[in-house]
Amino acid sequence: MAQRLIVVGGDAAGMAAASQARRRRGADDLEIVAFERGHFTSYSACGIPYWISGMVPERDALIARDPATFRADFAIDVRLRTEVTGIDLDRREVTARRLDDGGEVRERFDTLVYATGALPTVPDWAAGDVEGIFGIQTLDDGAALRAWLEGTPAPRRAVVVGGGYVGVELAEALIERGLTVTLVEQAEQPMSTVDPDMAGLVVTAMRGLGIEIRTGTAVTGVRQREGRVSAVVTTAGPVPADVVVLGLGVRPNTGLARAAGLPLGPTGGIRVDRRMRVPGVPDVWAAGDCVETLHRVTGMPVHIPLGTHANKQGRVAGINIGGGYATFPGVIGTAVTKVCDLEVGRTGLREQDATAAGFEFVSVIAESTNRAGYYPGARPMTVKLIAERPTGRLLGAQIVGWSEAAKRIDALAVALWNEMTVDEMTALDLGYAPPYAPVWDPVLIAARKAVDALAR
Amino acid sequence: MAQRLIVVGGDAAGMAAASQARRRRGADDLEIVAFERGHFTSYSACGIPYWISGMVPERDALIARDPATFRADFAIDVRLRTEVTGIDLDRREVTARRLDDGGEVRERFDTLVYATGALPTVPDWAAGDVEGIFGIQTLDDGAALRAWLEGTPAPRRAVVVGGGYVGVELAEALIERGLTVTLVEQAEQPMSTVDPDMAGLVVTAMRGLGIEIRTGTAVTGVRQREGRVSAVVTTAGPVPADVVVLGLGVRPNTGLARAAGLPLGPTGGIRVDRRMRVPGVPDVWAAGDCVETLHRVTGMPVHIPLGTHANKQGRVAGINIGGGYATFPGVIGTAVTKVCDLEVGRTGLREQDATAAGFEFVSVIAESTNRAGYYPGARPMTVKLIAERPTGRLLGAQIVGWSEAAKRIDALAVALWNEMTVDEMTALDLGYAPPYAPVWDPVLIAARKAVDALAR
Repeated sequence: MAQRLIVVGGDAAGMAAASQARRRRGADDLEIVAFERGHFTSYSACGIPYWISGMVPERDALIARDPATFRADFAIDVRLRTEVTGIDLDRREVTARRLDDGGEVRERFDTLVYATGALPTVPDWAAGDVEGIFGIQTLDDGAALRAWLEGTPAPRRAVVVGGGYVGVELAEALIERGLTVTLVEQAEQPMSTVDPDMAGLVVTAMRGLGIEIRTGTAVTGVRQREGRVSAVVTTAGPVPADVVVLGLGVRPNTGLARAAGLPLGPTGGIRVDRRMRVPGVPDVWAAGDCVETLHRVTGMPVHIPLGTHANKQGRVAGINIGGGYATFPGVIGTAVTKVCDLEVGRTGLREQDATAAGFEFVSVIAESTNRAGYYPGARPMTVKLIAERPTGRLLGAQIVGWSEAAKRIDALAVALWNEMTVDEMTALDLGYAPPYAPVWDPVLIAARKAVDALAR
Repeated sequence: MAQRLIVVGGDAAGMAAASQARRRRGADDLEIVAFERGHFTSYSACGIPYWISGMVPERDALIARDPATFRADFAIDVRLRTEVTGIDLDRREVTARRLDDGGEVRERFDTLVYATGALPTVPDWAAGDVEGIFGIQTLDDGAALRAWLEGTPAPRRAVVVGGGYVGVELAEALIERGLTVTLVEQAEQPMSTVDPDMAGLVVTAMRGLGIEIRTGTAVTGVRQREGRVSAVVTTAGPVPADVVVLGLGVRPNTGLARAAGLPLGPTGGIRVDRRMRVPGVPDVWAAGDCVETLHRVTGMPVHIPLGTHANKQGRVAGINIGGGYATFPGVIGTAVTKVCDLEVGRTGLREQDATAAGFEFVSVIAESTNRAGYYPGARPMTVKLIAERPTGRLLGAQIVGWSEAAKRIDALAVALWNEMTVDEMTALDLGYAPPYAPVWDPVLIAARKAVDALAR
C-alpha cells in the first residue's frame, strides 16, 4: 500500500517538495496531497509589484505551474481553497476546511511537509473594515489592489506604509500607474536592507522619480469617507490617501505548527535541520518562509523569506522524502532590488549586523563605473565592503549602481560563501572587457581599498 | 644614494609596477625610469575596437594616465619613443635607442621590471609593403587603421583575418562603420575561446549582423593594385578587400629577455614566481603580456595576455619592489566579450582544455533567461558547465546571452576559483528578483543539471 505525503501550503516550497518527491517515487509508492487555502499554486509573489504597475499585463504570467499541471503531470492531488486547521502528530492526521463550502476534511499522512509561508504584519489600524487598504503578499491581494486601482472613483493619491524592498517596489509601481505616492517609513531611512550610506543613493533616486518620502514617521490610524480610506494619520500629521498599501514585512506562519507542538526557534520560524527535517518529529519536514535557517556568516538562525530560498528548501525536502540525499546549508542574505533605474544588491552583513554579531570590522566604499569609463553608457557604481579585522574575511557587501550593477553582487556572494578574505579577492580573475568593466573591476577596486583599510 | 628602478615597457604592467613602487618609496630612495618605444603610456588596448568603430570618438579617452602625469605626480622619468635594445644583467645596465633621433642611451639599474608586452602574429604575406594591412595591437596601429578608413579612396570592403575575440570585435567595428566585412578563420569555427556548441550562437549573431564568415579557410597571400591591397588570397579563392585587419593572436615579446638570459617557460613567456620575480635573477621582475602564469585549474603554465592580468601583475611587482608583500596567485581564464548584442563569458577550461589536461568530466548546457520569464525584456541565456567526474568540481563555465549575461560569469569564476563542486553550487545564495533572474538563477539551473549528469 502506498504511503501518503501531505503538503500543507501549495506555494513554492510545498510544491517544490512535492514534485521532487514525485520525481523519485511513483504514485503507487507515494500518494501526494497538497492543501492550499488560496486560489493558486506556485506563483511568483515577487512579481506582484510588476503586475500592479502594469509592466506584467497578465496575472497568469506569474503562475509558474498550475494545479492542473501538478495533477496531470505529477499525480499530485492539489486541493485549492482548502485550509488546514489542525495537525495531529500522534494520529498522523490533518484536519482541513474547504473555504468555499465550509466542509471539513480529514486525511491521514505518513509524511508531512509544513510549508505555510509567512503572514504579513497588519497593524491594528489596518485591520478594520475601511476599504482601500491592501497587503500585497498573495495573488489574491494583488487582484484586490488592481481592482481598486481600476475602480470608480479612481484613486489618485497612494500611501505606501513601510520602506523595505517590497514597499519601495510598490511605490514605484504606483508612480508608474500615474498616482501620486507618499512612502511613510518609521525608521530614519527606507531601504534598510543596505547601510544608510548606500540607502541614501536609493532615496535620492526615488525622490527623483517623484515619490515623496516621509521618514521617522509612524502611521497611527486611518481616516475614511463613506467607508473608503481618505487619509492615513501619522505622528507627523495626516497624509491624504485614496489607497493604502502595506509593506511592513512578514513573520513565519506558524500557528498550526505551534498548536501541533513543532519546535520554533528564536526568530519565530520553525526549526529544521540541514535536510529540512523538523528535529525530533519523525517524518515531518518544513520549508520556505515559515522556517528559520542558518546564517552562514553569523552562525545564528535567521528568518529570510524569499522565493529562491523557499524553492531550494522545498527541493531539498522533496529529494530527501524521495529517498535521495540533499542538504540546505543556509543563507548569506543575498538580495537584489530594482528601484526606478537604480540597481541595488547586497549580501552578508550590514554594519549594524556585524556589530550586533560582535565582529570587529572595517568598511570601505569604492566609487567606480559599470563599464570602462570611455565606453558609451558608463554609469556610476558604488561598492561597499565590510571585512573582519584583523583577518580580512569578507563579512558583507553592497552595490548600488545605474545599470548592470545588481547581479554583480553574486560574485561577492560566492566570495563570501567561500569565506574569502579581501586580500585574496584582489587577485580574483573576473571578466574584463570595456563594455562590461573598467580594467580594474569595481569589485577589485573595493577589495584593494579594504586591504588598505585593514593595514591602517 | 637612491637606488634606481628601470622599467622596460611603459604600458599597463610596467606603469602599474612603477606607480606602486613609488607609493611605497619616495624619489630620494628610488629613482624610476620607464622606457617605452611607443608614443603612449598606460592605455587601453582593449578599447581600440571601439575607437575604430567610432563608438569611442577620441583616442585620448583610451589613455588612462599620460606621461606628464607620471612625471609630475609620481616622479617617474618616462622616456617615450625610446626602445630598449639590450639588458646587461652583469653590468646592471640597459641600452636604449631614441627612435626619433637615433641616439643611444645607457642607464644603470639596481632593479629591473621587464614589461614588454606581446607581439602580434604577422604572417609572411602581411609583412611586405602593400598598403592597407593593419594590426590593431597599439594605439599607433589604431591610428593608422583609422586614417586608412577615413582616407581617399574610402575602403568599402574589409577582410578580418582571425576569429578570436579581437577579430570578432574588429569585424563588428567595421560593420558599424558601414563596410562590408568578411571574417576569415582557419579553424572550423571562430570564437574558439568557447566550445563549438556555444560559439555557434555567436556565429549566428554575427551573420545576423551581416558579417560574412568563412571558416576552414587559410589566407595565403594578398593582391594589390598600385601598392594598395585589393584582395586576400585564401585556400578557398580570393576575397576582395580594400582593407585587411589582422587578429591572429599574440606571443610574449621576449627577444630582449632571451638575449639577456632570462628564463622562458614552455609557453614562450618569461617565467616568474608568485611575487613576479624572475627566478634565479636577483632584482629582476617581469609582468604583463610577456610572462607566463599559473592556470589554477590545470596547474600548468599558461600565456593569457589581458589588461586586467597585466595591471594586477604590475601592481604585485611594484608592491614587492616597494618593500611590501603581494603575490599573484595565477589565473583561471575568465574572459567576457561583446559580439553585436550578444554577450559571451567564459572561465576555466573548455572541453578540449579539460581533455588535454587529462580530466574526466561531464558537461551540460542549460537554457534559461536573464530575467523572470514574465518580466519585460527577458531574453534567452545559455549556461554551460564542465565538471570533473566523479568529484563534481567545477572545471569550466561558459555563458552566452542577449543582455545582462556576460558578467554573470564572475559568480562562476569565483566558484571555480574556490574549487567548488557543482553540488555545493546548487545551494549558492545568489541574488533573486524578477528584473534580474528567474527564481532559479540560470547558474543554479545549470549546476543542478550538472549534478544530475554526474549521477548518471
